[in-house]
Amino acid sequence: MRTSFHEDLDKISEHLVEMARLAGLAMSRATTALLDGDLHLAESVIAADEQIDALRRETDERSIDLLARQQPVATDLRRVVTAMRMSSDLERMGDLARHVAEVARLRYPDSAIHPMMRSTVLEMGQVAERIVAKAGLVIAGKDVQTALALDRDDDEMDRLHRDIFAMLMDDKWKYGTEAAVDATLVGRYYERFADHAVLVARGLVYLVTGEFPSQTHRDNEQL
Amino acid sequence: MRTSFHEDLDKISEHLVEMARLAGLAMSRATTALLDGDLHLAESVIAADEQIDALRRETDERSIDLLARQQPVATDLRRVVTAMRMSSDLERMGDLARHVAEVARLRYPDSAIHPMMRSTVLEMGQVAERIVAKAGLVIAGKDVQTALALDRDDDEMDRLHRDIFAMLMDDKWKYGTEAAVDATLVGRYYERFADHAVLVARGLVYLVTGEFPSQTHRDNEQL
Repeated sequence: MRTSFHEDLDKISEHLVEMARLAGLAMSRATTALLDGDLHLAESVIAADEQIDALRRETDERSIDLLARQQPVATDLRRVVTAMRMSSDLERMGDLARHVAEVARLRYPDSAIHPMMRSTVLEMGQVAERIVAKAGLVIAGKDVQTALALDRDDDEMDRLHRDIFAMLMDDKWKYGTEAAVDATLVGRYYERFADHAVLVARGLVYLVTGEFPSQTHRDNEQL
Repeated sequence: MRTSFHEDLDKISEHLVEMARLAGLAMSRATTALLDGDLHLAESVIAADEQIDALRRETDERSIDLLARQQPVATDLRRVVTAMRMSSDLERMGDLARHVAEVARLRYPDSAIHPMMRSTVLEMGQVAERIVAKAGLVIAGKDVQTALALDRDDDEMDRLHRDIFAMLMDDKWKYGTEAAVDATLVGRYYERFADHAVLVARGLVYLVTGEFPSQTHRDNEQL
């Protein structure tokens, strides 16, 4: 029995929502691992990334299969292409959570994050969790208003990212080069995580409205 | 008159080759701008990124149009999907060259790169140019052997990236936090540039052989 195009597409959306959930969980655990120097937790995040990678492969295979069997055109075709782009962004978000966990593992038993930066990094982790949770809601509910509101969380992430740079560039930074390198990389990982969530949300806006939100997002806002 | 599927796909390949050429040119000029503190050159790289972005949009539109009109299945369908992935990677490579140029602009009239790192960064720039030139050849010639050989250039990039970290972590690093932050970011941009070139090459291997090369590439080799 041939299932309908929309049933197949709903199945793909469910996969994307699950990828968003796993990416959020990974970033939440990676942040804790980083701040508490928790090796066990860091290892678990690193190992779990394979699940997100597998979901991405499966989502893409289902999408290609859907294109081949149902031969969608117009909006339906764009829906499938957009789903594949979203799966790519979500997989990358999983990679970025893994990278945060890898920094935690590298510095164990110490925490890579100096106490003076702890609250900023904690907040970056919270914004990351919030933004990916919203991205999941956006996919599940085709909710354009929430999708557009993601930009505000991303602005918040950019502000925190600038705070990290401000601390590093301050003459009072006396915590050594290793801590500065770690903070630079970690800050970039969180910022890119939020950028990919914004791209996921914009994909949804495009699907529903037929147009990408006008503002061109550029990463590296601090430069 | 309806053009053939393969003519349309060749046209898309030509766009991808042009994107690779522009990304290589951008990284070459960004490296010079960075090492020589050349503001004018940095600005030109930043402005030119829009060309690569436009080519990506055009490539994706052509691909979607091709899917809608020709309804390809099996290998032909995978070819179009792979072309869209390649255009995404190549666009990102353009972004990364722009980021290098943005660091150059930020530190003007100084060079962001300390003289002790100059030769390493110069070499990273050369490897980046080489790897994207090969990626272009791979797309144009559907050349699996060159595609597989890209891994060696990527290993070279990873080695240079580790050299950057080794210099930063050395107790003799006395050049301040700002220079360390810049080197960390720039090193990451070159490394990611090479990673995306490898992904482009793997897409081609997949197209020709039907299988992705077995080695799973993970970025952040230094961690």
